[in-house]
Amino acid sequence: MARPAEAPTAWPEGGDGPLYVRIARRIEREIRTGVLRPGDRAPSVRSLSRALGVSMTTVLEAYYRLEDRGYLEARPRSGFFACSPRAQALAEPACSSAEPSPSAVATGRLTIEVLRSLTDPGMVPLGAASAAPDLLPARKLNRIVREVLRELPDHSSRYTFPPGAEDLRRQIARRSYAYGCTFSPDEVVITTGAMEALNLCLRAVARPGDLVAIETPTYFGIIQAIESLGMRALEIPAHPGTGIDLGLLERALSKHAVKACVVMTTCHNPLGSVMSNERKRALVELLGQHAVPLVEDDIFGDLVFDGRRPKAAKAFDRKAQVLLCSSFSKTLAPGFRVGWVQPGRYRAEVERLKYLTTLASASLPQLAVARFLESGGYDRHLRRLRIALADQVQKATDAIARYFPRGTRVTRPMGGYLLWAELPPPVDAIGLYRRAMAERISILPGPVFSATGTFRRHIRLSCGYPWSEEMERAFRTLGRLAVSRA
Amino acid sequence: MARPAEAPTAWPEGGDGPLYVRIARRIEREIRTGVLRPGDRAPSVRSLSRALGVSMTTVLEAYYRLEDRGYLEARPRSGFFACSPRAQALAEPACSSAEPSPSAVATGRLTIEVLRSLTDPGMVPLGAASAAPDLLPARKLNRIVREVLRELPDHSSRYTFPPGAEDLRRQIARRSYAYGCTFSPDEVVITTGAMEALNLCLRAVARPGDLVAIETPTYFGIIQAIESLGMRALEIPAHPGTGIDLGLLERALSKHAVKACVVMTTCHNPLGSVMSNERKRALVELLGQHAVPLVEDDIFGDLVFDGRRPKAAKAFDRKAQVLLCSSFSKTLAPGFRVGWVQPGRYRAEVERLKYLTTLASASLPQLAVARFLESGGYDRHLRRLRIALADQVQKATDAIARYFPRGTRVTRPMGGYLLWAELPPPVDAIGLYRRAMAERISILPGPVFSATGTFRRHIRLSCGYPWSEEMERAFRTLGRLAVSRA
Repeated sequence: MARPAEAPTAWPEGGDGPLYVRIARRIEREIRTGVLRPGDRAPSVRSLSRALGVSMTTVLEAYYRLEDRGYLEARPRSGFFACSPRAQALAEPACSSAEPSPSAVATGRLTIEVLRSLTDPGMVPLGAASAAPDLLPARKLNRIVREVLRELPDHSSRYTFPPGAEDLRRQIARRSYAYGCTFSPDEVVITTGAMEALNLCLRAVARPGDLVAIETPTYFGIIQAIESLGMRALEIPAHPGTGIDLGLLERALSKHAVKACVVMTTCHNPLGSVMSNERKRALVELLGQHAVPLVEDDIFGDLVFDGRRPKAAKAFDRKAQVLLCSSFSKTLAPGFRVGWVQPGRYRAEVERLKYLTTLASASLPQLAVARFLESGGYDRHLRRLRIALADQVQKATDAIARYFPRGTRVTRPMGGYLLWAELPPPVDAIGLYRRAMAERISILPGPVFSATGTFRRHIRLSCGYPWSEEMERAFRTLGRLAVSRA
Repeated sequence: MARPAEAPTAWPEGGDGPLYVRIARRIEREIRTGVLRPGDRAPSVRSLSRALGVSMTTVLEAYYRLEDRGYLEARPRSGFFACSPRAQALAEPACSSAEPSPSAVATGRLTIEVLRSLTDPGMVPLGAASAAPDLLPARKLNRIVREVLRELPDHSSRYTFPPGAEDLRRQIARRSYAYGCTFSPDEVVITTGAMEALNLCLRAVARPGDLVAIETPTYFGIIQAIESLGMRALEIPAHPGTGIDLGLLERALSKHAVKACVVMTTCHNPLGSVMSNERKRALVELLGQHAVPLVEDDIFGDLVFDGRRPKAAKAFDRKAQVLLCSSFSKTLAPGFRVGWVQPGRYRAEVERLKYLTTLASASLPQLAVARFLESGGYDRHLRRLRIALADQVQKATDAIARYFPRGTRVTRPMGGYLLWAELPPPVDAIGLYRRAMAERISILPGPVFSATGTFRRHIRLSCGYPWSEEMERAFRTLGRLAVSRA
């Protein structure tokens, strides 16, 4: 299949923050992705300053920053060299390449036990995928809610029937250019969170008994939704660096009657991977050839660390066969439950199902999010949030390097706030989860991220909260617990 | 099966409003239910005043009120006699007694057309089952929302995971005594409206392909939810006066493998019927004998006109096999989408499905409703609302008597705000619905209230809005349109 080359984007353009930060981030990425390997010489300060048309001071500031963070080391009279900071030294978890075969979901009971444990207050919050409340703009949202109360005092007295509040759909459409799309407000359906969006999409494109291709590992909500709808899962391995294995997907599509495919294309949960534009395009084309609709879960899409919002796979969708799901739960207000979907050609069916499952979503949160977006504060907020999250993920990665047993592997997420760690034998993730709970530390055991209960040596750690003494202690404790099997 | 007699409740105790209004309402009910027939002499003013221990003036006030409303007539020197006001002269719609047989749902497309039309602004609002915004306590709710913003400023920054906000579950449990139950807060699961509650219940007790017994007519949302879940409907006739036909249900249960039964026991939509306690008890016992769970939809239950909150069928549930669904959408705030379910023995499964379909419901509306209930304002509000709705229903009934063709039958709802009218041939309800739409009048055609598209001469009229010149014109227009078939 044709994969036209991307137009190269000149760097350090795009992204957030001062110029030197953007330069540093770009170099960091080259090191993380292996373009610059440990021991390689970084471009000289002079040559880079010329190439980018920036001052040498700016380049130096970027290099000092990278030195501070352990990505470069200055060798006297030789310049700067890439190196592996401690965290970088951790390998990424391995990715299975086994032939996919359909499976019934076997992890329901464990997942519910785990979900219930997430509501337990007073735990060190490494379990639920929530950002710390302090990182979210609650005060501004409250100001906006008060505005809505004043200006639309009877918001509570009317249903906001599907497709949902028009102001909000307009704002979502307006932002769609950021990921390469141009929606009209009429194409968007508001949902009670992305979880409802995913359910409506699955039901719109598949029937009970049908086979749905999903990634493995993947968000447990997707697995359980498929199970609860009486569908079957076909697990396609996803790689921590590059996302779903397209080769295995292609073979699976030829071999099995797949009715739908669910992929987290940008900031995968739990892997943190971002598929490249080429791979997103290839995914859409591959599924298009087999007439299989793609349910694209983009819930963490606005949280890519380098600040350049990647395209959605939806941007490459010429057949209106991609159903793009997202929400404001990870970036703005989990308590609002405002999600949405652009369901392509399945719009009428998704809207019908929305009527029949929840009739409507709450009005006030929709109106508040619409005004928040309109005010322009969202991008500013995202910028701050991404910087905070990248820092938290880095600190947690460093702590894993310090405290976890030798042989631990961990992902290098390109966005979001989730880490996926593979621990060396003889650890058992479910036992570790239970022992961590007993120590008042909330984590998620790997098996809930698979329909078949694999990933028995993996855990997911959510880094939504700022680093603290308590976090430090929690990671130390986890490292200790991870050594014993009992 | 045993049906113990109800303990007689001394009247005019219970109910809302001044004493004379309560007396009048009770006499009115005796006339409506045929205890007092047209031409019967009403108790003498003196004897009633003695029997009730109230002044003769109070009884006279009640009788004058009934005279004003056409239920009594004073005959010189003979006292007061029951008579049929014009509206009373309309017969109730007939009830089928055909043998139930399973059916696939055939009304999906029409229902969606109709649902979409409900969102059209600027129509005379006889379609959607919504009370007029002016009848709902939006101002007080807004005051409470502001309180929540002050006291829990980070409400938006956290998920309120299932089973939902504890304060709200406590208030719902506290009120459950009113319909004969004694819930604990832990037994209640908060949902995104009663529609989600119904869906979760159906999915908790039945699988795709399973047979679900429903009433006919019944709320179209129930029919469509069953269809969308791949289940089949078994329609049991429901009577405008007494609710579901227990004899036919019993036969259906013996003959078919019914997996669940959905009944609107109190203030049926569209019939307005309230099943008696005896019939509710018999329903629960009958289903219990067949081990068939009852999904009880009580969404209009707080709106019985005479102010005496009837027991829920759930009150007779000794096997924890009744799943009681309700919401605050019809009484307080449709825009809040706060519903709930007490799922009996299916609690764990309902909670699991809630996680997997919408993950959580919005926090702010839950917190606001909890505080509203705590403030004690709910009962006061319900009292006013019921009086207004009873008046609106009466005025609409009168207008039907004035303007609709001879032979029109209409229900005499005991609560809620819905009228179900059967028009004489050759009317076609779907044609009438479309012609009414063209005249900017929103009504619902009968066929959407049946899985098989029957009720082709029926329409549902929602009386949620105060009477007005515009309403008067709309009913006149409907009466005119109902005569022609074109």
